[in-house]
Amino acid sequence: MIFLTRRERFNAAHRLFRPDWTTEKNTEVYGKCANPNWHGHNYILLVTVKGEIKPELGYVVDLKTLSKVIREIIIDRVDHKNLNLEVDFLEGKVASTENIAMAIWEELKIPIQALEVDLHSIRLEETENNFVEYFGH
Amino acid sequence: MIFLTRRERFNAAHRLFRPDWTTEKNTEVYGKCANPNWHGHNYILLVTVKGEIKPELGYVVDLKTLSKVIREIIIDRVDHKNLNLEVDFLEGKVASTENIAMAIWEELKIPIQALEVDLHSIRLEETENNFVEYFGH
Amino acid sequence: MIFLTRRERFNAAHRLFRPDWTTEKNTEVYGKCANPNWHGHNYILLVTVKGEIKPELGYVVDLKTLSKVIREIIIDRVDHKNLNLEVDFLEGKVASTENIAMAIWEELKIPIQALEVDLHSIRLEETENNFVEYFGH
Amino acid sequence: MIFLTRRERFNAAHRLFRPDWTTEKNTEVYGKCANPNWHGHNYILLVTVKGEIKPELGYVVDLKTLSKVIREIIIDRVDHKNLNLEVDFLEGKVASTENIAMAIWEELKIPIQALEVDLHSIRLEETENNFVEYFGH
Amino acid sequence: MIFLTRRERFNAAHRLFRPDWTTEKNTEVYGKCANPNWHGHNYILLVTVKGEIKPELGYVVDLKTLSKVIREIIIDRVDHKNLNLEVDFLEGKVASTENIAMAIWEELKIPIQALEVDLHSIRLEETENNFVEYFGH
Amino acid sequence: MIFLTRRERFNAAHRLFRPDWTTEKNTEVYGKCANPNWHGHNYILLVTVKGEIKPELGYVVDLKTLSKVIREIIIDRVDHKNLNLEVDFLEGKVASTENIAMAIWEELKIPIQALEVDLHSIRLEETENNFVEYFGH
Repeated sequence: MIFLTRRERFNAAHRLFRPDWTTEKNTEVYGKCANPNWHGHNYILLVTVKGEIKPELGYVVDLKTLSKVIREIIIDRVDHKNLNLEVDFLEGKVASTENIAMAIWEELKIPIQALEVDLHSIRLEETENNFVEYFGH
Repeated sequence: MIFLTRRERFNAAHRLFRPDWTTEKNTEVYGKCANPNWHGHNYILLVTVKGEIKPELGYVVDLKTLSKVIREIIIDRVDHKNLNLEVDFLEGKVASTENIAMAIWEELKIPIQALEVDLHSIRLEETENNFVEYFGH
Repeated sequence: MIFLTRRERFNAAHRLFRPDWTTEKNTEVYGKCANPNWHGHNYILLVTVKGEIKPELGYVVDLKTLSKVIREIIIDRVDHKNLNLEVDFLEGKVASTENIAMAIWEELKIPIQALEVDLHSIRLEETENNFVEYFGH
Repeated sequence: MIFLTRRERFNAAHRLFRPDWTTEKNTEVYGKCANPNWHGHNYILLVTVKGEIKPELGYVVDLKTLSKVIREIIIDRVDHKNLNLEVDFLEGKVASTENIAMAIWEELKIPIQALEVDLHSIRLEETENNFVEYFGH
Repeated sequence: MIFLTRRERFNAAHRLFRPDWTTEKNTEVYGKCANPNWHGHNYILLVTVKGEIKPELGYVVDLKTLSKVIREIIIDRVDHKNLNLEVDFLEGKVASTENIAMAIWEELKIPIQALEVDLHSIRLEETENNFVEYFGH
Repeated sequence: MIFLTRRERFNAAHRLFRPDWTTEKNTEVYGKCANPNWHGHNYILLVTVKGEIKPELGYVVDLKTLSKVIREIIIDRVDHKNLNLEVDFLEGKVASTENIAMAIWEELKIPIQALEVDLHSIRLEETENNFVEYFGH
């Protein structure tokens, strides 16, 4: 079993807020992250898959294919987008790093299994000082 | 003469667009950067000042004071903000990295002279692959 | 279960030595790290906590609160300090990266539980080439 | 139990190919990575060992000794080398990041046990966007 | 006048040698960099252009266009290539970082002028510890 | 003319203070940087030299020789040292990043000329957020 990680990036706007709360309540809980005019980040996404090395090929999975899947399933839907308004798989969720990472896991799990490897973890970095990791359970 | 650089960071939403153009025209010129729902970045700001070492102190300028000035004059007004809607010194400008860097120069020039050093350059990094530098002329 | 990491930094002096050994013995064992006049590092501290996403909030723990706890319990006591002479929780210990990381774990465990998450790991980077990780057992 | 990581680097040429395949077949499978004229990388190697802190010394293993072992057993044999032609422990293997990481594990396992710690993982970074991790099974 | 930098990357094999010298002489002068079996690097290329902000657009040059020019003129010809054997603009030159940077300057100068900006500098990083900069004269 | 930069690192203890001032006055001016028990940093030193490419060799200066000079003249005298107590070329100076960079320039200028290139600049990074550059006048 070996673990392979692909790093991708996307730039997006978001805010932390709950639509069922007032602006005041949102600001009280989420501080400046609740700004109704949005703010944004250069997100860094690290997708780790695991599997056996395919003996005839020498690798776990073709990196170009893995990158293509991540781009088509995730990056193209979130890059230069508003995470609160435009991303169907985040609908109804607070756009926290935790929720985004978990939602990315759900989106990628099956398509990555189709590459004959297992999704091991999603690491999502919001800033150079904050990141989350999710292992699927 | 010695050059001293302070690095600060801010996270903001923006879009590239001209209000006197249609959405179609903006998208044609600026591509996905024109998204009306905004996107965002972790901006990295490097402010370089120059001056003589003050012989009695051994430094050009007190770094805590320099950082405080940059934070009060710039960071507090752009961090977790929408650069198109909420930043007075960017009003009426396309929120490009170039324009933001030049506007930051104009804001910082006089306050930094008050610290008895000269502003030498503003470097603004939008992503790990793109940055601009402005030297005031 | 999701894992959230906060990165903080501190700059400190230290040396590797045992007070019950002669200077010669300390130098023999620890090399230049035993220098009686000290040396120092920009330490990077990564604190990882784990827990369930709080459904009403969308995050595991408020990052500002987590950062505040790490700063009050650790950073304020080690930053711009001598780790051998001035840090009570390192008293009587060789100031190795391993011992510092384990001591930070002991200091943070209870205060972080008070935030309703569990401390998962302490990663302490001494240089760009050396770091340790401790998981509490 | 604590985990200690040492980072080393090497620059090498390689290509992905199987000698029992035609050039056309190799290019079809491995793309530009199969270039018969080679390409190369700045590889980053992170070796993580685990063990108890030696109470009399305060560390798990002497970092200079660990670094010396990694350099003698691995770096000196791969740095400024052709991984396909000149590295005995890679003979007969596709020079993929996965295979190189696993082979490094096999080379280092016993010499690191001789330092009275256990090898925990090999992380090998081929580019800033791709890396693998191997834990020995 | 404002300066805009685009960062691109390529992975290539090379060696330092002069064909009119013996292998012994090449090794004496260039050390392990002369290895006849090649070695390689992850090169980082920073292309800086300068110009006035185009008032109607708000930027100096369209970044996608700039990136496309660098990729077509440089990256596609050097990425996953052997710099000594396969790159016409390096023919007859020692494949040193200095010579590669200067040759990239010559290749890019006119195509970048066609974008209505001036090429200001080429920075080429061979490793995290070594890089060169060329300003065209 | 081409510019070549070599990056080296050293870890050292220091404090900001003037011996002719009281502890109170030092603390008032330099804050926590005046701590009498010292603190320290992982300093990053970037030495840039400039010259013509030597046509018979293809480079400006042999990097191994340049690195050797920097290590012998600077790194060996400051690494794992106390910059206030143990470095002769800093005697009588406030150990600020500015003064250290200027003193390194004076130490390196002649030895680097002996390599038939000119010293262009000294960049000294004290933390990831603070650095100085000195060009010799």
